[in-house]
Amino acid sequence: MSQAYDSIYDWLSTEDKKFLEENLFHPYADFLSEGNPKFFNRIHNHSTWGNAAVGMIGLVMDNDELVNRALYGLENTNIDKAARDNDGGLIQQPGQKAGFLANIEEAFSPSGYYTEGPYYQRYAMYPFMLFAKALQNKRPELKIFEYKDGVLIKSVDALLNLTDADGEFFPLNDAQKGMSFFNKSVIMAVDAAYYYGEQDPRLLSVAKKQGEVTLDDAGLAVALGLKNDKEKEFQKKSIVLSDGSKGNKGGVGILRITEDESIFSLVMKFTSQGDSHGHYDKLSYSFYNDGEEVIQDYGFSRFVNIEPKNGGGYLKENTSWAKQSIAHNTIVQNETSHFNGDFDTGNKYHSEKYFSDFSKDNVQIISAKEENAYPGTKMQRTMALIKNDIFQKPVLVDIFRVKGDQSNQYDLPFYYFGQIIETSFEYDSPEKLEKLGSKNGYQHLWKEASGAAEAGNARFTWSENNKFYTLTSATMQNDSLILGRLGASDPEFNLRRDPVYIWRKSNTKDAVFASVLEPHGSYNPVTELGNNSFSQVQNVEVLLDSDEYTGIEITGTNKNKLLLVISNNDAEDQHNIKIGNREISWKGNYTLIEN
Amino acid sequence: MSQAYDSIYDWLSTEDKKFLEENLFHPYADFLSEGNPKFFNRIHNHSTWGNAAVGMIGLVMDNDELVNRALYGLENTNIDKAARDNDGGLIQQPGQKAGFLANIEEAFSPSGYYTEGPYYQRYAMYPFMLFAKALQNKRPELKIFEYKDGVLIKSVDALLNLTDADGEFFPLNDAQKGMSFFNKSVIMAVDAAYYYGEQDPRLLSVAKKQGEVTLDDAGLAVALGLKNDKEKEFQKKSIVLSDGSKGNKGGVGILRITEDESIFSLVMKFTSQGDSHGHYDKLSYSFYNDGEEVIQDYGFSRFVNIEPKNGGGYLKENTSWAKQSIAHNTIVQNETSHFNGDFDTGNKYHSEKYFSDFSKDNVQIISAKEENAYPGTKMQRTMALIKNDIFQKPVLVDIFRVKGDQSNQYDLPFYYFGQIIETSFEYDSPEKLEKLGSKNGYQHLWKEASGAAEAGNARFTWSENNKFYTLTSATMQNDSLILGRLGASDPEFNLRRDPVYIWRKSNTKDAVFASVLEPHGSYNPVTELGNNSFSQVQNVEVLLDSDEYTGIEITGTNKNKLLLVISNNDAEDQHNIKIGNREISWKGNYTLIEN
Repeated sequence: MSQAYDSIYDWLSTEDKKFLEENLFHPYADFLSEGNPKFFNRIHNHSTWGNAAVGMIGLVMDNDELVNRALYGLENTNIDKAARDNDGGLIQQPGQKAGFLANIEEAFSPSGYYTEGPYYQRYAMYPFMLFAKALQNKRPELKIFEYKDGVLIKSVDALLNLTDADGEFFPLNDAQKGMSFFNKSVIMAVDAAYYYGEQDPRLLSVAKKQGEVTLDDAGLAVALGLKNDKEKEFQKKSIVLSDGSKGNKGGVGILRITEDESIFSLVMKFTSQGDSHGHYDKLSYSFYNDGEEVIQDYGFSRFVNIEPKNGGGYLKENTSWAKQSIAHNTIVQNETSHFNGDFDTGNKYHSEKYFSDFSKDNVQIISAKEENAYPGTKMQRTMALIKNDIFQKPVLVDIFRVKGDQSNQYDLPFYYFGQIIETSFEYDSPEKLEKLGSKNGYQHLWKEASGAAEAGNARFTWSENNKFYTLTSATMQNDSLILGRLGASDPEFNLRRDPVYIWRKSNTKDAVFASVLEPHGSYNPVTELGNNSFSQVQNVEVLLDSDEYTGIEITGTNKNKLLLVISNNDAEDQHNIKIGNREISWKGNYTLIEN
Repeated sequence: MSQAYDSIYDWLSTEDKKFLEENLFHPYADFLSEGNPKFFNRIHNHSTWGNAAVGMIGLVMDNDELVNRALYGLENTNIDKAARDNDGGLIQQPGQKAGFLANIEEAFSPSGYYTEGPYYQRYAMYPFMLFAKALQNKRPELKIFEYKDGVLIKSVDALLNLTDADGEFFPLNDAQKGMSFFNKSVIMAVDAAYYYGEQDPRLLSVAKKQGEVTLDDAGLAVALGLKNDKEKEFQKKSIVLSDGSKGNKGGVGILRITEDESIFSLVMKFTSQGDSHGHYDKLSYSFYNDGEEVIQDYGFSRFVNIEPKNGGGYLKENTSWAKQSIAHNTIVQNETSHFNGDFDTGNKYHSEKYFSDFSKDNVQIISAKEENAYPGTKMQRTMALIKNDIFQKPVLVDIFRVKGDQSNQYDLPFYYFGQIIETSFEYDSPEKLEKLGSKNGYQHLWKEASGAAEAGNARFTWSENNKFYTLTSATMQNDSLILGRLGASDPEFNLRRDPVYIWRKSNTKDAVFASVLEPHGSYNPVTELGNNSFSQVQNVEVLLDSDEYTGIEITGTNKNKLLLVISNNDAEDQHNIKIGNREISWKGNYTLIEN
């Protein structure tokens, strides 16, 4: 409406303008702000919409008071300190600033990561960018695109990095799958980032895929850039995006490795809570083979704008399932969610990146720690994408250490897709299906089968989209392996019937879950020829585990061996250790040795 | 090998030829035929391969005895009349001829339909066409391509008609999904049908899609035809393909209707048993929205050439599940399969087409009867694709009449895909999942929920691939509605976890299952906009049902009404009946009246 009013402003009579402003625009801006302080004065994408609305009409009317209200928030509100919105989030953190600038300041990390996650960043980009463009026109002295070291421009880069090979956003926190950089908000954001930023030619190649530009100076600049063949490929590489307004609240690691024109992407999450849209999924991950989900993040339980499903709003299973830890590919202790599923507790903490190294072609590695999700339990997960002659394609090596101060049950789920092809272990299939548990998301899983692991390895092979995958896990005696399926306690059929493979350790204080996820082979239903339907990993073994070091050895069916040793502390030191009869030494966080 | 030998024949010395023929080719041809009469002398795709092998080497060696053995089979065998192959099929029917010509004669109907179904036809086309091409070269007097009124050429047309919008074969009987006209056998068959037939320009457009031709005269002719822009679109229209060597053993009806560039296809099966690869699925159907399965046929339970799954061979669930009637979209009486799942009984009978009419743009209709699947029970199914202003897209109207000589339980399953959006009926979801039954395929279904229908309508809406579908069924008090899922009694995880909606009538002698399957609406995950997520069918009602007539009325939410009346006998007569206070009259099998 502000844009429309601005467009005809000069053609209207003074009388008409006065009438419209006094009877419609000013009262409406007041309604959005002073009339709804809980909505307006928050750090939340909703508030950004409100700030932009009030600020933009203020710019058109040249009303500094409204513009300042939008930029800096309401000064005096009587919001109860404990007040919450209907999504469970606090209205106002103690000492929290408000308004548009505070939303830029607080919601974006210096790397441009938006704390609610990419799905909501995409949504919020619209008011962020639109108001910023208006400010740049009418208040150039504010230098809004340079604010916080140019974070609005950086955020576009971060957002594009948070997409899979098809341009779809990784569904971190509450997110509907299928949302992508083809969305209108992102088209607008890409054009603006190009024009108001430094004319990054990589953005042109994204705009070319989007196939659309905005009808303004920014869109024209993009169109001319493309016309003049200035575009460069937007190569998505491994990256760590920090979380938190100062970049000190963990983050997201995206590891990418390419083989035969396929990109394998790992998304590992060690952020802060992510506000009210956050999930209890510390150290969780998802894994992609190009645009295909191999190990999925469930996303949210909601059918946006599908009227028969609760009017398109959030479903109760979003809380009872999608936010719970067991809905994610991370460790769940004693069948309770991280922070006991309590928002205020989760909101206080964040995971910490321990190290990452993307400098080598054959290994991309990241490690992070979480010490607050379960009081008394410390978790560290190291994940690496590794290319080696042992494997047909790059593999994902996962070393999840957990150290408790008492005996616990630890579950590590893997949300795969598709058809089970083979398992190395025996299991029982029950005559009746029972729920895996009674609460914290476990009530939504049917137990389709369960088996006992042997000391050694458990191999689990499945097929999806005519490709094969094998997870080889270094198991111990008494570990159990559970095949589950989503859909229990779901009277409205709101949940997808997705499968899960759960690796469980019971009565355990300290444990290492070490595994190799190996994409291999292919199948063609027209020729009916398959290749490499068998894993090329013969053995995965934890050779060493202590507070100082964890070392695992992978043996291929070709008898080649690969040794990965992580220094669990003192990351940058020189290390000299003995594994078996072998002495190895290296400097830094980890070493990967072939032999 | 015959082709290879033929290619170098003129360059070999007489001595070498003698050596090869006496020591390799002749003994091998004898092994394939006289040495394995049960393999060679059968009506089965395996025998066709054997016939072609023996005949083609015979042609190269100019050995009439071998060629005749291939064409006419072995004259004297000592095959036990009751002998069966390992797939359960009879080796030889009483009075059955054998050999290549008998396989053409017996396995193809005059319309070109191959009794095992399109998946196996595709497989058998290779030896059929290859040997025929060789015969055409060396024994042109046989006029093999004119044999049985040119059925080999017609069979290519039939095979192409048995594909969905993406060129994938409808998975009738034992069949692996994803097999398509891109297969090598079909490329060869299309080229041969063009060259040895009447240069049908529609085949050129198929060859163009295939993107490949055979390296011989046939392929050259196709390539030249394409070079000279002779191709015409291969428009797939509604068609009935008769089954049986004389075309008098039922058949397959494929109904197609187009709207907004989408093709909706119905495949209705009323064939004979289909030999050893047949399923117990009389009057079953599947329904496609372009290349997407809306109501699926399961296909077979086998992972061809995937070694870890029983060496790629048939799995035991093919018998216990995929062949059973409950695995198909047709009526199952008292939880037993058609013909009690007995091959010999099934092999004696076939369904009968009652009528079809494809002459009108707004309705494509077919009706068939089955009176032997359950002794004492008569079944008649009429299916129509109808376009009307009531509906956003064409709908499938299904009128399944069943008439028993005693009270029975009748189950009519609908194998949909995707997410349930809304139901009009209440149902209970159990705390534990139990199997739906103990045998005949029921042991493989979990009962996820069940509810009681009201007298009136049951509406069931789901979403798949961002499209919506609603099934509106005219229910009676005491009908029950069951939501099931495949996967019970499946210790090797050989079955897909597909969902099913079952409409059950208990303690019923005569019944009409009348329903409307309505594709509607769409969803875009990038714009998050949905349209028409609600059904536009307000009511479906059986206004009349007698041995003579069945009439159903469909009322739209726009209050328009559509009356479809079927004459259940005396198809071609003039009919005058009264429905309520309304007198209607028509000539022929059915009438469709708008008001």
